[in-house]
Amino acid sequence: MKDKLMLMIPGPTPVPESALLAMARGPIEHRSQEFSAILEEVTEGLRWLHQTTSDVFVFACSGTGAMEAGILNTLSPGERVLVGVNGKFGERWAEMSEQFGLQCERIETPWGVPYPVEVFQEKLAADREKTIKAVILTHSETSSGVANDVQAIAAAAREHGEALVIVDAVTSLGAMPVPMDEWGLDVVASGSQKGYMIPPGLGFVAVSPRAMAAAERSRFPKYYWSFKLAQKALRQGTTPFTPAVNLFYALQVTLRLMRAEGLEAICRRHARLAQATRAGVKALGLKLLVNPESAASPSVTAVLAPEGINADTLRSTLKKRFDIALAAGQDHLKGKIFRIGHLGFVSDRDILTTLAALESTLHTLGYGDFPPGAAIKAAEEILASP
Amino acid sequence: MKDKLMLMIPGPTPVPESALLAMARGPIEHRSQEFSAILEEVTEGLRWLHQTTSDVFVFACSGTGAMEAGILNTLSPGERVLVGVNGKFGERWAEMSEQFGLQCERIETPWGVPYPVEVFQEKLAADREKTIKAVILTHSETSSGVANDVQAIAAAAREHGEALVIVDAVTSLGAMPVPMDEWGLDVVASGSQKGYMIPPGLGFVAVSPRAMAAAERSRFPKYYWSFKLAQKALRQGTTPFTPAVNLFYALQVTLRLMRAEGLEAICRRHARLAQATRAGVKALGLKLLVNPESAASPSVTAVLAPEGINADTLRSTLKKRFDIALAAGQDHLKGKIFRIGHLGFVSDRDILTTLAALESTLHTLGYGDFPPGAAIKAAEEILASP
Repeated sequence: MKDKLMLMIPGPTPVPESALLAMARGPIEHRSQEFSAILEEVTEGLRWLHQTTSDVFVFACSGTGAMEAGILNTLSPGERVLVGVNGKFGERWAEMSEQFGLQCERIETPWGVPYPVEVFQEKLAADREKTIKAVILTHSETSSGVANDVQAIAAAAREHGEALVIVDAVTSLGAMPVPMDEWGLDVVASGSQKGYMIPPGLGFVAVSPRAMAAAERSRFPKYYWSFKLAQKALRQGTTPFTPAVNLFYALQVTLRLMRAEGLEAICRRHARLAQATRAGVKALGLKLLVNPESAASPSVTAVLAPEGINADTLRSTLKKRFDIALAAGQDHLKGKIFRIGHLGFVSDRDILTTLAALESTLHTLGYGDFPPGAAIKAAEEILASP
Repeated sequence: MKDKLMLMIPGPTPVPESALLAMARGPIEHRSQEFSAILEEVTEGLRWLHQTTSDVFVFACSGTGAMEAGILNTLSPGERVLVGVNGKFGERWAEMSEQFGLQCERIETPWGVPYPVEVFQEKLAADREKTIKAVILTHSETSSGVANDVQAIAAAAREHGEALVIVDAVTSLGAMPVPMDEWGLDVVASGSQKGYMIPPGLGFVAVSPRAMAAAERSRFPKYYWSFKLAQKALRQGTTPFTPAVNLFYALQVTLRLMRAEGLEAICRRHARLAQATRAGVKALGLKLLVNPESAASPSVTAVLAPEGINADTLRSTLKKRFDIALAAGQDHLKGKIFRIGHLGFVSDRDILTTLAALESTLHTLGYGDFPPGAAIKAAEEILASP
């Protein structure tokens, strides 16, 4: 049905009506006290979300741009970095690092399996000459639904003393705790169309004092991405280049919503919804990609399609009948998995709706190896508990 | 009065209600046939606007990002470029080029005076070893209200045979003709909050086959800005990284409006509005910054504040009483000039309104060396003619 689309993908995520309507206000001058006031409020909200006293810079870009900014500002060509790779986004950061001429060591596990923390720990401990300049990590790997143990790897990097910790928090921020200062993270990159609950177009980069000091030494050419220009402008209540004003309107609205809900409550909600989703799909006899399940992301659940059913057929059948969008598998998992996003502006109702539609679609496709209502029953057991 | 703001600045420019409301629709999946259809329509509209058969790539970024992409994809460190500098934006491209390690030769004239075309011609003609790899030009210099003769310089570059023509068309596209193919331009960069009549957040880069060939040789590191990734994705009806979906909704609306009006009509309208604005301010005894007036930009008019009146006092007085925003002078012209934007979604009514408010404000500030209604009379003489 036209305009009935329900987004259950890990981004773009659903946007609250109040944020959508905020964007429909005409733009104001970006060099004005009124915009400076919005920037100030939003920056304070971003610090709150990142649990940091550091600066958080907002760029007009996607999450990839935010990661690019993080790497270009803190490193120099030829430097050695460890890159965790267990999905599409880890691959992307490794590819980007190689493209930039970094000496990139991939620490790989299969998609669905979390980072081998001990390999990072060993490599960092063995590096007495301090040649490792950064570890580049994907917190919640959107392609596979794995939450990697960034905290433990960051602790090892802090012990190492030299390596910066650069984190893709694109689908973790606003869904699980990312206490930047407590964990000792140096660059935390994210994008607006995720836990922030607004449309795509803004990239965020939180930058520790260590990372700002590294920016002084970095020899990559940069201008648009320059942290130094961004920091200088922010001190003057502005941005170096024209900001995406209308997306700021929306962000102001959703950060207020987030602060009203509270960070702990937000993370608890995401954990519950993710747990209920996993319980639901397992009750249908389906298998999760993540292994072990304790490493499951609170934002997105990757599910193996049942034997004999193409995951993309399942997705398109479900979308056609119910107007619910699920995400596809990427690269070698195309057609083999589907992904349910439960990130951002998502409630119990959305999980039950999606599981009911999934059950019905599986029936339509001739797979029905479960008692009717099994997914709802299993999910409701989680959701009904306080 | 709250929410009564009227933008008469050269960006962000006023946005039609239909485009604002389009943005208030929830985002769709960017990897979907529905988004591909929008991307295809928009790309075709961008080709029409640029009068080109080349690709036009859309990035989530500001106009500065679009220029950065143009330079990073087509040049390599150490290469010689000529940069035209007669205002804030020319300064910015020179600064960016130096930051990127290019051998940057500034060809300067004072703010308000157009590029010395003959200097470009002589340098290009004298360069028998073909060491000049690009000329970097600002078409309409937003800081001073000058339209530079890009056509003549591009012709000299084409005769040179090696130098690419990289053009900031940020306040010229959608206001004056920028026939990319006819003039032989290689990179045309622009931003959404100008003639496109939508809010900031999208950057556009039109790329000639010569520039795409140069992208094969370029040795600057890039990933987010990569033309090759952008072109590969565009051939598949998508974008390499998450696009700013809601801004695409608005762009789809305004490109339809622009095509309905017609490119010639749009340019004629801007020329008339600019001419009427200049006639109006001159009738108040005020002086234009541009010299000669024949080089005036159709998008923005820079006006010297009268002796003894600070331009920023004039602007704030006018804004307070009438809720009309004019733009400030930048750098050494701060407080000395104000700028009237007449770019994008602007009509006769807006020019008469602004001139009436300006006349009244000058009176308030004790400057009244003109017959009452002089600006309106002079502007109306232009506007009333067919």
